[in-house]
Amino acid sequence: MSEYKKSGVDLDSVNHIHRTIAEMLSKTYKNTVVGAGHYAGVIDVDGTKIALHVDGVGTKTLLALKTGIIEPTGIDCVAMNVNDIACIGARPIALLDYLALEKEDKDIVTEILKGILKGSEAAHVEVVGGETAIMPSVVNGFDVSCSVMGKVERLMTGTEISPGDLVMGLPSNGIHSNGFSLVRRLIDQGKISLKDYAEEIMKPTAIYSDAILEVLPKIHGAAHITGGAFTKLHRVTKYGIEIKMPDPPEIFKVIENSGVPHDEMYKVFNMGVGMVIFVSQEHGEDVKRELAKKNFNAIELGKVTSSHSEVRITTYRSSVLHL
Amino acid sequence: MSEYKKSGVDLDSVNHIHRTIAEMLSKTYKNTVVGAGHYAGVIDVDGTKIALHVDGVGTKTLLALKTGIIEPTGIDCVAMNVNDIACIGARPIALLDYLALEKEDKDIVTEILKGILKGSEAAHVEVVGGETAIMPSVVNGFDVSCSVMGKVERLMTGTEISPGDLVMGLPSNGIHSNGFSLVRRLIDQGKISLKDYAEEIMKPTAIYSDAILEVLPKIHGAAHITGGAFTKLHRVTKYGIEIKMPDPPEIFKVIENSGVPHDEMYKVFNMGVGMVIFVSQEHGEDVKRELAKKNFNAIELGKVTSSHSEVRITTYRSSVLHL
Repeated sequence: MSEYKKSGVDLDSVNHIHRTIAEMLSKTYKNTVVGAGHYAGVIDVDGTKIALHVDGVGTKTLLALKTGIIEPTGIDCVAMNVNDIACIGARPIALLDYLALEKEDKDIVTEILKGILKGSEAAHVEVVGGETAIMPSVVNGFDVSCSVMGKVERLMTGTEISPGDLVMGLPSNGIHSNGFSLVRRLIDQGKISLKDYAEEIMKPTAIYSDAILEVLPKIHGAAHITGGAFTKLHRVTKYGIEIKMPDPPEIFKVIENSGVPHDEMYKVFNMGVGMVIFVSQEHGEDVKRELAKKNFNAIELGKVTSSHSEVRITTYRSSVLHL
Repeated sequence: MSEYKKSGVDLDSVNHIHRTIAEMLSKTYKNTVVGAGHYAGVIDVDGTKIALHVDGVGTKTLLALKTGIIEPTGIDCVAMNVNDIACIGARPIALLDYLALEKEDKDIVTEILKGILKGSEAAHVEVVGGETAIMPSVVNGFDVSCSVMGKVERLMTGTEISPGDLVMGLPSNGIHSNGFSLVRRLIDQGKISLKDYAEEIMKPTAIYSDAILEVLPKIHGAAHITGGAFTKLHRVTKYGIEIKMPDPPEIFKVIENSGVPHDEMYKVFNMGVGMVIFVSQEHGEDVKRELAKKNFNAIELGKVTSSHSEVRITTYRSSVLHL
């Protein structure tokens, strides 16, 4: 049994539920261009392609309350959404937040909202509404999710990715918003010191949407590394991917050394790479230069191969994983 | 202290948080036409007015699990959203669902999704995406919220409502999705028999959006009766409202007789009227006829008065409330 499953999250079961849902939802489609199961849904509104997406920050909220570092969860919530819709080529325009709280605590709400505002400013989205639900008997602490609406500038579902394309990685800002059930378990077991790593663990998710949209005309695809980490690269292309991952930031080694199998690290965490992009060889240097202007130091990870949908990762310890 | 506050929901405090939020969010506005605090946010996208809204079903989910009647919560979730955006004159187009669960239970997810599909079919919206989050340590049972995107057909914020307008009510389908913290407390105290009233209590929220959009060119305003019930009528007009409420369905009398003050009933529950519309006298009969074709039997409740923002309700027991 994986460490993640032991933390109460069974990815196989979750994936199965997701597939069932996608099938059920597809019955409602008429103007839907991209349905459930991708980075975002896309619907045609009088000829304009509108992207819609919803995502939350999971159980990171529990550590937010424990550490008192609450604001980043608001940024996370925005980031999880705008990064995802950028991956299908949509520019985020408007955002809604949904906040479910155990009790009406003005300070907590204010901190979360401050984070949502910071994130929204960075992603240039307007927060047009939201809901704050007080539900003492349903929620422990708080749960925050956002939904985002964007305008598709160039629909990018991965069909342009082809063998020989460069695979580049954009650095993450820590563990972002995934894998927290596992991290919390390791903290509870005393294997990770929350006191020593609180700041690092609570760092907000990087906002990549602006940078991705800047290079959108020159890339073939993008993959936000979130739940399921590098196992989700299958989603963007039918071709194979062969990458060599860099030495990860310390926090990932701390987590791994607390007892998580090496291969599982790449199935749960971003390992220092929060966004993967696919670029034709000719545009490689150009894209790198433009991303640098947006303060992202893109690193070359590897290439797209012609082998059918195999994701082959050489880890920082030079192990080879087939995901 | 109100019965509702005793159930853990302090409406004053919630309202205060909402106002703080609206102020904070307004800092992000550029293309926003209607911001937080109305029935929906509206943003201008290349000349098209797009409405966005998010809402959940509150603690009705706990009774869903207790009674095993789960599907209606999915319908509720759609209804809460499409009814709200219809009130500002937007036609619902696409929906996202966000489901936070204590554990991965395929049966529960399927029931909720079935409800969301039923609701979406009735409201003619496409469910373009969603998120299912498994969070054992944050959620007890489940929490379901939806966000909806719509296209504004005629922006209706209540400015057209004027003294002399008819106030009409559309029948509700039971207690809908609000006041459940109070209802659950009465059940827990043994004052309402869940066994006898489960079916009635769990009935889904009526979907009014289709009917409202049908009469949209002929009405001056609409108010979905949800949290805060008739106290929220202030939101749609600066003028006074004088209405006589009809005899409510039995379930409301059962709730009242279990110990809720008469006036509080009108501050928490819809009392048989789930949607209020404002119509000029000349269009009254016409609107009634069109609503009847959509299977809603509109009842005349009263009139808009020139007294400044006073909501005067004559209750079914002929008490007069000033809300």
